[in-house]
Amino acid sequence: MTPHPLSSLTEAETLTARDVLLSLHQHEVLIFREIFLQEPSKDVVVEYLEAEHSGEEAAALSPPPRLARCQYDVVGGDKIPVYQESVIDVSTKKRVDHEIIGTDHHAALTIDEFDILVKVCEESPDFQAAIAEFKLPEGFEVVVEPWPYGGLEDTEEESRYFQGLIFGQDTRTKNPDANFYAYPLPLIPVMDIHQRKIIRIDRLATGGKGDSLTGQTHSEKILDHCAPAEYVPELLPGGARPDLKKLDVLQPDGPSFSVTDDSLVEWQKWRFRVSFNPREGAVIHDVHYDKRSVFHRLSISEMTVPYADARPVFVRKQAFDFGDGGAGNYANNLALGCDCLGVIKYFDGYTVESDGSVKKQPNVICLHEQDNGIEWKHTNWRTGRAVVARRRELVVQFIITLANYEYIFAYKFDLSGGIDIETRATGIVSCVNIDADKTSDYGNVVNPGVLAQNHQHIFAVRIDPAIEGHKNTVVQEESHRVKMNPETNPKGNYYEVRQTKIDKSSWADIAPQYNRVFKIINESTKNKISGKPMGYKIIPPATQLLLADPDSLQSQRATFAQHHLWVTKYKDNELYAGGRFTMQSRTERGGVGDAVARNDDVRDEDVVVWSVFGLTHNPRVEDWPVMPVEIHQIHLRPADFFEANPSIDVPSDKNCASRLVVNGQNGTAGATTNGHC
Amino acid sequence: MTPHPLSSLTEAETLTARDVLLSLHQHEVLIFREIFLQEPSKDVVVEYLEAEHSGEEAAALSPPPRLARCQYDVVGGDKIPVYQESVIDVSTKKRVDHEIIGTDHHAALTIDEFDILVKVCEESPDFQAAIAEFKLPEGFEVVVEPWPYGGLEDTEEESRYFQGLIFGQDTRTKNPDANFYAYPLPLIPVMDIHQRKIIRIDRLATGGKGDSLTGQTHSEKILDHCAPAEYVPELLPGGARPDLKKLDVLQPDGPSFSVTDDSLVEWQKWRFRVSFNPREGAVIHDVHYDKRSVFHRLSISEMTVPYADARPVFVRKQAFDFGDGGAGNYANNLALGCDCLGVIKYFDGYTVESDGSVKKQPNVICLHEQDNGIEWKHTNWRTGRAVVARRRELVVQFIITLANYEYIFAYKFDLSGGIDIETRATGIVSCVNIDADKTSDYGNVVNPGVLAQNHQHIFAVRIDPAIEGHKNTVVQEESHRVKMNPETNPKGNYYEVRQTKIDKSSWADIAPQYNRVFKIINESTKNKISGKPMGYKIIPPATQLLLADPDSLQSQRATFAQHHLWVTKYKDNELYAGGRFTMQSRTERGGVGDAVARNDDVRDEDVVVWSVFGLTHNPRVEDWPVMPVEIHQIHLRPADFFEANPSIDVPSDKNCASRLVVNGQNGTAGATTNGHC
Repeated sequence: MTPHPLSSLTEAETLTARDVLLSLHQHEVLIFREIFLQEPSKDVVVEYLEAEHSGEEAAALSPPPRLARCQYDVVGGDKIPVYQESVIDVSTKKRVDHEIIGTDHHAALTIDEFDILVKVCEESPDFQAAIAEFKLPEGFEVVVEPWPYGGLEDTEEESRYFQGLIFGQDTRTKNPDANFYAYPLPLIPVMDIHQRKIIRIDRLATGGKGDSLTGQTHSEKILDHCAPAEYVPELLPGGARPDLKKLDVLQPDGPSFSVTDDSLVEWQKWRFRVSFNPREGAVIHDVHYDKRSVFHRLSISEMTVPYADARPVFVRKQAFDFGDGGAGNYANNLALGCDCLGVIKYFDGYTVESDGSVKKQPNVICLHEQDNGIEWKHTNWRTGRAVVARRRELVVQFIITLANYEYIFAYKFDLSGGIDIETRATGIVSCVNIDADKTSDYGNVVNPGVLAQNHQHIFAVRIDPAIEGHKNTVVQEESHRVKMNPETNPKGNYYEVRQTKIDKSSWADIAPQYNRVFKIINESTKNKISGKPMGYKIIPPATQLLLADPDSLQSQRATFAQHHLWVTKYKDNELYAGGRFTMQSRTERGGVGDAVARNDDVRDEDVVVWSVFGLTHNPRVEDWPVMPVEIHQIHLRPADFFEANPSIDVPSDKNCASRLVVNGQNGTAGATTNGHC
Repeated sequence: MTPHPLSSLTEAETLTARDVLLSLHQHEVLIFREIFLQEPSKDVVVEYLEAEHSGEEAAALSPPPRLARCQYDVVGGDKIPVYQESVIDVSTKKRVDHEIIGTDHHAALTIDEFDILVKVCEESPDFQAAIAEFKLPEGFEVVVEPWPYGGLEDTEEESRYFQGLIFGQDTRTKNPDANFYAYPLPLIPVMDIHQRKIIRIDRLATGGKGDSLTGQTHSEKILDHCAPAEYVPELLPGGARPDLKKLDVLQPDGPSFSVTDDSLVEWQKWRFRVSFNPREGAVIHDVHYDKRSVFHRLSISEMTVPYADARPVFVRKQAFDFGDGGAGNYANNLALGCDCLGVIKYFDGYTVESDGSVKKQPNVICLHEQDNGIEWKHTNWRTGRAVVARRRELVVQFIITLANYEYIFAYKFDLSGGIDIETRATGIVSCVNIDADKTSDYGNVVNPGVLAQNHQHIFAVRIDPAIEGHKNTVVQEESHRVKMNPETNPKGNYYEVRQTKIDKSSWADIAPQYNRVFKIINESTKNKISGKPMGYKIIPPATQLLLADPDSLQSQRATFAQHHLWVTKYKDNELYAGGRFTMQSRTERGGVGDAVARNDDVRDEDVVVWSVFGLTHNPRVEDWPVMPVEIHQIHLRPADFFEANPSIDVPSDKNCASRLVVNGQNGTAGATTNGHC
């Protein structure tokens, strides 16, 4: 049976695409990067989905062709690989599109390229000589932490580069997970991957306040003022704490959700599909509530992490974790009992190795329910009767690791028609060596000799709405003070709610002082109760935008990070806020900035909304060695979409598994009682 | 044994205070309002706490006297009650303070006064005649919903008033919890409680857009265009949904917290006391982490709920739920298995009836642990080893019902030294009658004939810090763009972190565009790692402030709601952001505005920080009949207070109770598997 048009490619489909591609390039060497579902064009998939939702039998539906987007290098005669993309129809086994990417764009990186950097460093006499200038403590080895090179400056020649952050690791711990980030070495080797050669080694300044931007102030005993900072339990001086007692989530009757047809999730009137791809990770498709269309597609589109250390070399510490690395590529294999509690459904993904072998990535997405306190409550004080419904959430979660850092992404569906899109930032903050007893304007000393640099994380979430259909309008709504006046505001307590419909593709920023929210409405509909068009509102977090100077390389590469909300007209394949190619970019191309510049009509059109938010992260000592999560959420909430609170029929039954502490003493088994169910 | 100086009054102490008071007023009639702990003055309690923390045996400590604040009316010869407050030392049984409150201040309301309004309405021929002008549907009875009168306008004579919002209730349902709010009647009777008389009946306009502010456009069949909107499960047309499966939280080894000495909570290095009083509800005292002082007192101080309907009578819909009603007074009796899951400790409170009898208020606070996803995670991509700690939280929760509305307040302690102070707004939105088929600028039609009026909820949280002692400084920190320049920002990626110490008592507003946060630091300390003073930062939610015209009665009464952060010098008994007396106030007196006006030195002093935030609530149809929670949180986070992430030693053990869904089908018992522990 053909998979659903929105389901990820199966292993068999991926292999087919690979084989078709190999047969088309029989006389060339291919280095595979990614093969994943090329989603059908929207007109085609919408036609299919409408037939599907109208109740047609699966057999009677005519599915669009299953297409695979293949990303690969072709190694030609001069050994310089040429990056290409092909789209293969896996049913007809034909290529339907082929694109040779110009040299001013770069493919996303692969782990293989990281491995090459490590190897090239090992074999580089220059790099080894640079290391030998230091007197490392006994038992210390050098760790190369590969990074994308960041943006190319005007003066730099176009090639494909990688940079390495360099650390020492204390092998005397005899533990490969000893935290090497506590021992930064002030070198950044830069490799040209086409030449497989270290072309430059940047020497990092290790000074503090008042020191020059480039001066070399450190001694050769560069790690002697550093100290361990472990996080694996067996290396903690005191071990793990013993007194946090078990908290289990049990669902004796199983989960309330079902997953069928590989990708179809149904839960409490919600119905949507989940897919997984190497760039965006988990993607949510075709979201319906109670058979009514709400969103066509939800995805984490891009993020950028620019570092703010003024010393010149650090302008190139700017990751685009989706465009450069691929969130799906770096998704964790989630483990039962670690990343969620309760009854969990895991989804697998498939990735392709450079030699074309297809690898199963198990458990890249987890799906589970959780309790999040009270959803609604009312007590009638006359009768004393309390009615209370709990807030159950369905969570689609994936977690990515990019070198030192991790991000936990979740789509959370609630019982009242709401969706929260959540990011949690955690992992190890990126750091460099700083001389003993100095402080810095560029970050905070979080361990002796370790400067955690100030940086930002700016996320873009792509929201492709389908509020009762695909023709939608975005409305900016604000609440404004009104001067007291006898005609409209005699007592001064009135405030005005102002709505502005967005007619042309454009951007907007948050304005909490006006309670600015954005509504996506369907102007052809009318809520039977309120008489207003049906809609959903977007409540983005009020966070700081990109701080880098607008003329800086960091800003030029990340137009998307300069406004909170972008409204564009839907265009097939326009999925990435920062553009299709971010690796080593000089400017953002094909991102939301360019999309908005088309000046499209977006009123009552197929619109796409891009919500941008993030964190300015000036590290605390408490963010070390692993940072407690910093959490942000976009709230999507029905706004006159329904005719009442959709969760009003959630049972208010007592939970009979809850227990009382019967005395005030430290709880022990048996120190609790039930007695109420 | 004498209770701890910060523990709430016991039943016996309350009775003692009452009896002492009765003996002092032998020849007068007393109407009791409240009796609760008068906390010791700070110098006295700090001395005691320091001795306690230094390890002195309880027996060796000399506790300050236990004091009871008594609030009551004395009914004199002319029958006009005179409001008084006395402080009784319950050990010596002596009065230590006595205050006869002037007539321009009003005591908080009591349920008795609400009952009086209902009775006076029933017995008022004017009110009954006004009702008789309507033709109510068969089987409908009239419900009087008492409200405080709001602010007194300049033209109004000083007395003590109450107003009633009037609804019809369909008795044909034979259910006392049938939702009467669906049937609003356009009348507001106003009672002078001293005269026990309805002095005026305001007739409400029921028009929509374009109609005059006062015109009477409705017919006598005022409820004929209204419709039921039930929330109790037995009245729902379809009953409760059947398919939400059980989710249980089990703690087989009991909770990880202990509660001793009535009020002392210890959990995962946290140590604090919980008390309860009729005004503020749950209060957190003397917060230590790992034996280090963090906060002296945390409380929800005030909130105001102004309504924005321009029709003149509604300027008086402005509740101060803490000052007018008393959050503790209206705290719910929390039920096992409804308001929290897991193993729960409940705290009781005591309140006083008007006749002086002392009533136990059971379960007014609940204390429990919960899981909130991942606290930190790092995967070493070289070794594949993931270390992940879950985010366990300890929650102190109380819930209040004020007529139609409810608020859920929680103090949440986490494993990384953070505290979230959370508000959830739920309950039934306040509403008035609107003619059929009209819409309004003053709110949204949420049920036929029901206009839910636009309003705001502005909360004030009082934070009395004690970061390593009581002399603290508040610092405003911002992150600012820096123009690219060769000297300090050659590549344009640098941004500047600016700190401004607050020297004099003052206010500040949020500014997310600058990532403005507020740090409370102890300037005499120095973090061994970073070299910076130890502190905690406050991350307030970026929400809109009070919208009413600054000259309006609503604004005049709520100075506190006009800025996001107030920094004042500590003063005994200065606990209430909106002032001690809010009932029927004309202006805010003795609130944060006045405290700031003292122009005190607050640098390296005993400072208090007041954080103000809220929601502008323009109701959606989905907020009806009971509103899904709208959640806000203030985050308090250590900022160089510790020398590393305090949760780094939280065990990363697998949770063995988690289960896999083994097939994609709807989960049923047995459709899950374990197989990993």
